Amino acid sequence: MSNSTMEQLPEVFVDLYSLNAALLIFKMLFVAASTGLLRLKKKISPNPEDARFMGQDAPASDDEDIARVRRAHLNDLENIPAFLFISYLYLASGPDEGWATALMWTFTVARFAHTLVYAYYPVPQPSRAIAFFVGLFICLFMTGYVFIKHL
Amino acid sequence: MSNSTMEQLPEVFVDLYSLNAALLIFKMLFVAASTGLLRLKKKISPNPEDARFMGQDAPASDDEDIARVRRAHLNDLENIPAFLFISYLYLASGPDEGWATALMWTFTVARFAHTLVYAYYPVPQPSRAIAFFVGLFICLFMTGYVFIKHL
Amino acid sequence: MSNSTMEQLPEVFVDLYSLNAALLIFKMLFVAASTGLLRLKKKISPNPEDARFMGQDAPASDDEDIARVRRAHLNDLENIPAFLFISYLYLASGPDEGWATALMWTFTVARFAHTLVYAYYPVPQPSRAIAFFVGLFICLFMTGYVFIKHL
Repeated sequence: MSNSTMEQLPEVFVDLYSLNAALLIFKMLFVAASTGLLRLKKKISPNPEDARFMGQDAPASDDEDIARVRRAHLNDLENIPAFLFISYLYLASGPDEGWATALMWTFTVARFAHTLVYAYYPVPQPSRAIAFFVGLFICLFMTGYVFIKHL
Repeated sequence: MSNSTMEQLPEVFVDLYSLNAALLIFKMLFVAASTGLLRLKKKISPNPEDARFMGQDAPASDDEDIARVRRAHLNDLENIPAFLFISYLYLASGPDEGWATALMWTFTVARFAHTLVYAYYPVPQPSRAIAFFVGLFICLFMTGYVFIKHL
Repeated sequence: MSNSTMEQLPEVFVDLYSLNAALLIFKMLFVAASTGLLRLKKKISPNPEDARFMGQDAPASDDEDIARVRRAHLNDLENIPAFLFISYLYLASGPDEGWATALMWTFTVARFAHTLVYAYYPVPQPSRAIAFFVGLFICLFMTGYVFIKHL
């Protein structure tokens, strides 16, 4: 049982959390929109009603470009909501201010890098793996911190 | 750096946020349950142990009806959690009460419409595209609002 | 319109929510990491740059082991973020303390069981279905509670 009464973000972290959350959500929405635009440009969609609207005879499976953006997007869904929950609880658990600031911004930079090299400009591995594991380790660290603080 | 001390939802927005969140989460859970029931009814599942349980010899790939519900569900996962995070931060950033109320309810109505015409009653495009982009623009607006307020 | 001023977690629920959230997020990140390690071990990836890095000639489709972990992971994404939102609002809506404690821990146990029998040790159905529906019903109950409390 922790003695903490911090059931909400300390004021010093409100801007930090809000800015990082806004940037990460913008990035996710950008990927969502870019899938839609890519489908329109390439006239590829799995839905018959979309194919008709784009003047195609039949729905089509994703080509490699679209499948790549989809994989990047799914990887976001696997990591960013988890981060937005656990980083909120981490910031509400009284971490060191310098560490908290560094971890929040590092995660955001790593996920922007991940999307860039996954969805748009593929570069040789392990670039994407590094971006992925930096994000994952930050989440794991915050998760362990929250768990121990509230045990 | 904002001067805001609103690290939590102002009381006037608690019901607004809670009701919209409950409706959107109910809608997502309904789609999840309907996938399960559709699989049972059609005796189609990608898992060997499900096929055995349903008296089938082998697992089967999703047919078009199930694949459509899955795509609608995935689209929910791409949009609704992002909205639940950013709308919370938006409401906590001191928006105009009339605008906030209108945006929250419009998003919820748009996503219910999106699910209806995607998963259950496909109608000609651009019906679904309109529902999707209304939701996306509301998220983008709120994201920009949060970003600027906390910069 | 509720009379509630509970726009934040009551102190009595801070540890309960934080511990359950940390456990569920750890579980999701564990599945994410295990997908990556399985891909490395089996040298299977849908991305050409990964195949090159692992010394393969071409990308490969997921085999059944990897596809199974992916399905378990996707099922997490469909259920756990929804739970983390609705259980926060439920705990903030003044529920009975005993019920709240029981529902939070039951959900967490059910999702750990779900992952175990889906991703790692498949057992005959309806084991997985029971774990899934226990989690779903808890989410639905909390959703109904939040809706009625804030109507």
